Amino acid sequence: MTGNLTYAMIGGGKDAFIGEVHRKVIALDNSATLVAGALSSTPVRSLESAKALGLPQDRSYGSWQELIEKETSRDDCVDFVVIVTPNNTHFPIAKACLEAGLNVVLDKPMTCTSDEARQLGHLANDKDLLCAVTYTYSGYPMIREAAELVRTGRLGTIRRVEMNYIQGWLAQDLESSGHKQASWRVDPKQAGAGGALGDIGTHAEHLVAFVTGLEIESLSAELTCFGAGRVLDDDAMIRVRFAGGAKGSYNASQICIGDENRITLSVHGDRGSLWWAHETPNDLKLATLDDGTKFLTRGQAGLSERAAAAARTPPGHAEGYLEAFANIYRGVAELLNAKKLGTPIGPLGQDVPGPEAGLVGMQFVERVVASAANDGAWT
Amino acid sequence: MTGNLTYAMIGGGKDAFIGEVHRKVIALDNSATLVAGALSSTPVRSLESAKALGLPQDRSYGSWQELIEKETSRDDCVDFVVIVTPNNTHFPIAKACLEAGLNVVLDKPMTCTSDEARQLGHLANDKDLLCAVTYTYSGYPMIREAAELVRTGRLGTIRRVEMNYIQGWLAQDLESSGHKQASWRVDPKQAGAGGALGDIGTHAEHLVAFVTGLEIESLSAELTCFGAGRVLDDDAMIRVRFAGGAKGSYNASQICIGDENRITLSVHGDRGSLWWAHETPNDLKLATLDDGTKFLTRGQAGLSERAAAAARTPPGHAEGYLEAFANIYRGVAELLNAKKLGTPIGPLGQDVPGPEAGLVGMQFVERVVASAANDGAWT
Amino acid sequence: MTGNLTYAMIGGGKDAFIGEVHRKVIALDNSATLVAGALSSTPVRSLESAKALGLPQDRSYGSWQELIEKETSRDDCVDFVVIVTPNNTHFPIAKACLEAGLNVVLDKPMTCTSDEARQLGHLANDKDLLCAVTYTYSGYPMIREAAELVRTGRLGTIRRVEMNYIQGWLAQDLESSGHKQASWRVDPKQAGAGGALGDIGTHAEHLVAFVTGLEIESLSAELTCFGAGRVLDDDAMIRVRFAGGAKGSYNASQICIGDENRITLSVHGDRGSLWWAHETPNDLKLATLDDGTKFLTRGQAGLSERAAAAARTPPGHAEGYLEAFANIYRGVAELLNAKKLGTPIGPLGQDVPGPEAGLVGMQFVERVVASAANDGAWT
Amino acid sequence: MTGNLTYAMIGGGKDAFIGEVHRKVIALDNSATLVAGALSSTPVRSLESAKALGLPQDRSYGSWQELIEKETSRDDCVDFVVIVTPNNTHFPIAKACLEAGLNVVLDKPMTCTSDEARQLGHLANDKDLLCAVTYTYSGYPMIREAAELVRTGRLGTIRRVEMNYIQGWLAQDLESSGHKQASWRVDPKQAGAGGALGDIGTHAEHLVAFVTGLEIESLSAELTCFGAGRVLDDDAMIRVRFAGGAKGSYNASQICIGDENRITLSVHGDRGSLWWAHETPNDLKLATLDDGTKFLTRGQAGLSERAAAAARTPPGHAEGYLEAFANIYRGVAELLNAKKLGTPIGPLGQDVPGPEAGLVGMQFVERVVASAANDGAWT
Repeated sequence: MTGNLTYAMIGGGKDAFIGEVHRKVIALDNSATLVAGALSSTPVRSLESAKALGLPQDRSYGSWQELIEKETSRDDCVDFVVIVTPNNTHFPIAKACLEAGLNVVLDKPMTCTSDEARQLGHLANDKDLLCAVTYTYSGYPMIREAAELVRTGRLGTIRRVEMNYIQGWLAQDLESSGHKQASWRVDPKQAGAGGALGDIGTHAEHLVAFVTGLEIESLSAELTCFGAGRVLDDDAMIRVRFAGGAKGSYNASQICIGDENRITLSVHGDRGSLWWAHETPNDLKLATLDDGTKFLTRGQAGLSERAAAAARTPPGHAEGYLEAFANIYRGVAELLNAKKLGTPIGPLGQDVPGPEAGLVGMQFVERVVASAANDGAWT
Repeated sequence: MTGNLTYAMIGGGKDAFIGEVHRKVIALDNSATLVAGALSSTPVRSLESAKALGLPQDRSYGSWQELIEKETSRDDCVDFVVIVTPNNTHFPIAKACLEAGLNVVLDKPMTCTSDEARQLGHLANDKDLLCAVTYTYSGYPMIREAAELVRTGRLGTIRRVEMNYIQGWLAQDLESSGHKQASWRVDPKQAGAGGALGDIGTHAEHLVAFVTGLEIESLSAELTCFGAGRVLDDDAMIRVRFAGGAKGSYNASQICIGDENRITLSVHGDRGSLWWAHETPNDLKLATLDDGTKFLTRGQAGLSERAAAAARTPPGHAEGYLEAFANIYRGVAELLNAKKLGTPIGPLGQDVPGPEAGLVGMQFVERVVASAANDGAWT
Repeated sequence: MTGNLTYAMIGGGKDAFIGEVHRKVIALDNSATLVAGALSSTPVRSLESAKALGLPQDRSYGSWQELIEKETSRDDCVDFVVIVTPNNTHFPIAKACLEAGLNVVLDKPMTCTSDEARQLGHLANDKDLLCAVTYTYSGYPMIREAAELVRTGRLGTIRRVEMNYIQGWLAQDLESSGHKQASWRVDPKQAGAGGALGDIGTHAEHLVAFVTGLEIESLSAELTCFGAGRVLDDDAMIRVRFAGGAKGSYNASQICIGDENRITLSVHGDRGSLWWAHETPNDLKLATLDDGTKFLTRGQAGLSERAAAAARTPPGHAEGYLEAFANIYRGVAELLNAKKLGTPIGPLGQDVPGPEAGLVGMQFVERVVASAANDGAWT
Repeated sequence: MTGNLTYAMIGGGKDAFIGEVHRKVIALDNSATLVAGALSSTPVRSLESAKALGLPQDRSYGSWQELIEKETSRDDCVDFVVIVTPNNTHFPIAKACLEAGLNVVLDKPMTCTSDEARQLGHLANDKDLLCAVTYTYSGYPMIREAAELVRTGRLGTIRRVEMNYIQGWLAQDLESSGHKQASWRVDPKQAGAGGALGDIGTHAEHLVAFVTGLEIESLSAELTCFGAGRVLDDDAMIRVRFAGGAKGSYNASQICIGDENRITLSVHGDRGSLWWAHETPNDLKLATLDDGTKFLTRGQAGLSERAAAAARTPPGHAEGYLEAFANIYRGVAELLNAKKLGTPIGPLGQDVPGPEAGLVGMQFVERVVASAANDGAWT
C-alpha cells in the first residue's frame, strides 16, 4: 500500500452513520488519507464536523460546491471524493465532481434513476475518471471466490439462483419517532423509488450479478408495504429470468423480526452448486458432481487469486463487514495508483464496481417497481 | 397404544420405497398390525411380496379389488387400508375402499386432480370414514409447536412466509437409465400435472398451511423444466397472496446439486418470527418483540401439548423423518380407536391431515400449473 | 428382514423409560417380535405391564427367574432376552440367562464391576451365546463411516481425540423430589461406582473405542460432585494415553444447564481429521491433507458399506437416536439369524457391541474412579 | 476518538505478520497515529521498512535503543510504544521503554518468564505507566457480554468451564522448510517454555480468566509434542481447579488438520450456562433456569454497556478478529487520553488487559510446564 492517496468526503458528518464507516475502512488498509471535507448540508455543521475530525482548516468546506471549486484549484487536490449524502443528492454532486475532473466513490444505490446513473457513467467514461459504487457485500473474499468458481466453470451452466436479503429493523414504525436511519429510507424524496428494494434489494441484485455474471432478461415482482402509512415498499419478492435460460428468486424484506441481516445466496449449475451466508461470511460451501461437497474458507491455501487478494489474516481469523467494505477501497486505491504511478492493477482493482454496476442496480429498481405496479407482469 | 388395530396395504411391494417406510413407522409405535395386502400390480408379484412380509396366506391378495372384496366380508376386517401406489391410481383405489366402507390412508399428493380429491372428501364425509393424507413433514414436533405459536398469537398477525423445499437428485437425467423413483415422477401419466411441484411442492404448501392456517387467495408461478427432454417441471418458484394480506414466497426444486432435502420455513408476523429447517428438525428458533430470540427444542419442558404429544424421547435425542411420519399414524390410531373404543382423541389425532388438506394440495398444483402456463398471471 | 425372531423382555414395565425405547426400535425394523416378559420387579406389576402390552398370558411372567425357567422349557423358546433392569441387577439376570442357554442383550453399562463383565463374557463365549450391549451411539451411520475412515487409514496415524458428552438435567436436585430417572442414577447401590461416568461416560468411552479402535493404556481423571448431597460424580474430566502414543481428552457432565445431549467427537490423525456432533448426527466433517474439507452425509453415494447398511432412507431424511438404536438390533438379528438360518452376517452384525466392549466400559469406570480417588494419578 | 495520540512501533517490519495487524487495527478507529519506528533487528532493514511505511526520516530509527533515546528527548515524544518483536525480546525492550518513561503495548505472551512479567508490572506501576498486553480474543464484544453476564450473576455460581483452542497448521513440519511463523514458534529460545501452550494456550487461559474472573488454584497438565523433532509442545490438555471449587478443562492444540482457529468456550453455573465459538464470534448463546435458551448477538439492543462499547456497526454486520483487536487499542487510547486530557475512562479502557493479566499468563505457562514434567501432578 503506498498510502499516498488523499481523499475528500462529502456528507458523513457528526450524526451520519455510513460516512464514519467509509473513513474507518479506508484507514484500515491505509488506502488513502482524509484531507478535506464538506461534511454536512449546512456550513456551520460542516465546519463543526471537520473540526471534530481534525481536518485542516483550509480544507474544511462549508458546502460541496466550495469543496469542488477550491480543491480543483489546489496543486495537491485530493485524488478522489467520497460521496455519502442521501441518495437523492448523489447525482448532482457526483456530476459536478466528475465535470470538475474529480474521481468519485458513491454509496449505493448510485442515483435515483437509471437515467442519472447512465449520465454519470458516460461522464466518467468520457473524462476517464473513476466512478465507483460501494456495493459492500461483493467485497467479501468468499464472494469473490464464488464468482471465480462460476467464471471458471466449476458449476457448469448456471440454472438457478436463490438470493435472500432479510432484515427486521423496520418491522415496527421507527420513522414516526424520529429514527434518522429509518426516516430517510421511507421517504421517496430522499430514498428514491424503492424502499427495501433500493436499500437492500440493490445489494441482492449486485451480489447475484457479481457472482454469476448473469444478465437479467426480464423480471416479475411483488412489492409490499407492511408498515402502516408507508409509501415505499418494505418487502420485495422478485422472480428473474436471466439471459440464457437461468432463473432466479430474490427476496428482500425489512419487516422480519429477529432477522438482523440474513443474506443468503445459492447458485446452482448443471455441474455443481455453491451456498454462501452472511452469518458465516468466511465460509463457502461447494458441491460438484465430481468432487462431492466441500467447505472452502477464507484465507486457506488453494483459493483463487481474487479471493486471496481480498483477505488479510490467516484462515480462522474471522474477517467481516468492515474488511469486505475496505476491499472496495483497496481496489479503488489500486485503480488510482495505476493511473497516478503506473503501478499494476491487481484483482482488487478489477473487482471495483463501476458505473455500469450502479446503472444495472438502478434499472433493477425501476423494472421491479414497474412490474409490481403492473401486478407482477414480466418486464 | 392399544395395539389392536389392523391394516392392509395396497402397493408397497418388494421394489417399492415408500411402502416399506409406512410399515416401519406404523410398527415403531405399534400403531397397528399389518395383516393383509395387495402389494403389487400383478398377482404373482403381490403374492411374492406378501410371502416375504410373512402375511397370512388367506389375506395375501392378488389385486386391490380382491382385497376390498374379501376383507370387507370378514368379521375381522382390517381397520384401515394404506394406499401407497403411484399417484394416478390413488383415486380409483381410495374411492373403491371408501365405497366399501374402508378407512383409508393415502400418500400425498392425494390424487391427480382436485375434482378427484373433492370426490374422495365427500365420500369419506358421507360415510364417516377416515381419509388421511400422509403429509410427513407436518408430523415433526417442532412444526406442531410452530403451528401452536402462530395459533396462539405469539407472532401477532402474520405478514410474510418463506418456504423452500430444495433437492438435487434430479439435476441429472436419472429417468433414462431406469431409476425407478425418477421414472414415475417425471411421467405425467403417473405423477399428474406437477413434477417437483407435485412431489415436493405439495409438501411445501401443506407445511405453510399447517403452520400458519393461512388460505391462499391467489398465486403467481413460474415452472421450469431444466432436465433435457422432461415434460414436467423440476423447478417451481411461486408467490402467494394469502387471504388477509400476508404474502408468501415458495421455492421447490429438484435440480440443485448437493441439496439433499433442504426444507426451510420462516414465518414473520408483526409481533415475532419463527424459523425451522429440516436439517435440524428438533430445533425451532423464535424471535418476539417482547422476549428476544429463543431456541426451542423438541422434548423440552414448556412446549405446547401438541408438540409434547409428538415426541417420544428426552430432549437432545434426535428424532427424525421416520418419527415425524410415525406421528401421522399415531394420530390415525387415535382417530380410529376413538371410533372403535370410544377412547379420547388427543392432539395427535387432531393433527392428522384429512381430505381437505389433500384437496387444498391438489388445488395448489392446479393453480400453479395454470398460472405458470399463463406467464405467471395471478390465479 | 426375516421377522421370525422372538424375544422376551426383563424389566421395562409401565413406568420405565428405556424398555419402551427398546421395544420401539426392535419393532421399527421388525427385527424381532416381543412374545414374553417379566416386566417389573413385582409379580403384580409385571403382569399388569404384560397385559398392557398385549403379551400372551402364558408368557407373562411374574419374575425373571420364572421367565428363564419356563421359556427354556418351551419348544418355541424366545431367541433372545432383552434385559433393561437397573444396572445392579444386570449381572445376576444375565448370568442366569446365559447359564440357561439364552442369548442376551443388555443395556449399558453392562454390569457394576469389570469382574462381573468378564464373567459374563466368558460365559457367553463358552456357551457360544450372544451377549450384546446396547451402546446406542455407535449405531449412527456416520459414526460407522467415521470408524471406517479411521480403519482404512484416511486419517493416517491417530494422534488426538476429543470427546465430550454433556448434559444439564442434573444441574438441579431432581432426585430429592422423586424423579425416577434421577433417583436411581445418583444411588451407588443401583448405578454402580460411576454417576455421570457410568451413565454417559461409558457412552463416551465406547464411541471413541468404536471409531478409533484405540486401546486406553492409562488415564488420569478428575471426578466432581457438584450437586449438594450427591455421592456419585455428576462431572468427569479425563485425560487418556492410548497405546501407540495418541492422547485423548474426555469430558462428561450432567450439570451443564441448557446442554441437552451435547455429544461431540473429533479425531485427529497425521493425515486428516474428522468431526461428528450428535446435534447433527447425519453429517460427518472430514478434512484430509490431500483433499481439503468435505461434508459427508448419511445416505449419500460413496459411503462405506458399513454406513450404507446402517441407513434406511435417502440422504436428507434425518435419521436419529431411535434409528441408531435400532441398528444395534438389526445387527443382533443378523447374528442370531446367521446361527439359526445360516444367513450371512453383514456389516450390521459385525458392528454389534459384544461383551468385550462391555468389559472395557466397566474397566474404564473402575480406572477413572481409581485415578480420581488418587488425585488424578495415571492408572 | 480524539485521534491526537501518536505511537512508535518496535518490530513489525516488512516480513513480519503481526506488526501489520497492529497498525491496521490502530488505524481502523484512528486510535493513534504511527509516527516513529525501529521496525527490524538490523538498522538497514529497519530503515527500509520505515521508508516503506512512509515514516518521517528523523523518526525512522535503526534500533530500539536509538528509538527510546531519541523519542524521549523530543517534545513531541510518542504517547506509547507498540512492541511486536519475538517473545524473548519483549522483556528487555519493554523494561527499557518503561524505565525511560514510555507507555508500552506488548503482544502476548508478555515475556518468557513470570519473573520478567512481574518486574514489568512493578515498573509500570511505580512509574504510573501503561503496560498493556494484547490478548485479542477478549476484545470480542460478545466475550465482553459474557464477562458481564458472569459478573452480574446471571449464571449463578460458576461450576465448570470448557475451553478449547484448536489449530492445525503445525500438523506437518513447516519449520524445516523455513516457514517464518512456524520456525520461531517451535524454537524455545525465541518462543519461551511453551509451544502451543505459549502461543495459543495463553489466549485460552486469558479468555477464561476474562470471562469468569476465576483464579486458578491448581492445575494438572499433559503436554505432547507430536511433530517429529520438536522440543516444545504442540498439544496441551489441562485440567484446572479454580479457587472456590469450580473446575476447568482446557485443550490447546496445533496439530488438528482442518481446524483453523477453533476456539470454543462454555461456562456453566448453577443458574445458567453460556457458549461462545470463534467461528461465529458475533453470537452468544445463553441458557438460564429462569428464561430458557436465548441467542444474543453483537450490536443488538439490551446488551451491556461493555458489549455495546466494543461494537461499531449494527447487528448483523459481522465484526471479526481485526475489530476485536482494535478494541484493545480503543481502550488503550481511552486510558492514555484520560491521563493526557482528563477525558473519562469508559468500558473499553477498563477492559484493557494490563501487566497482571500478562503475569497470570506467564504463571500459567510455567505451572503447566511444571505439572506436565511431573506426569500431570497438580501444581
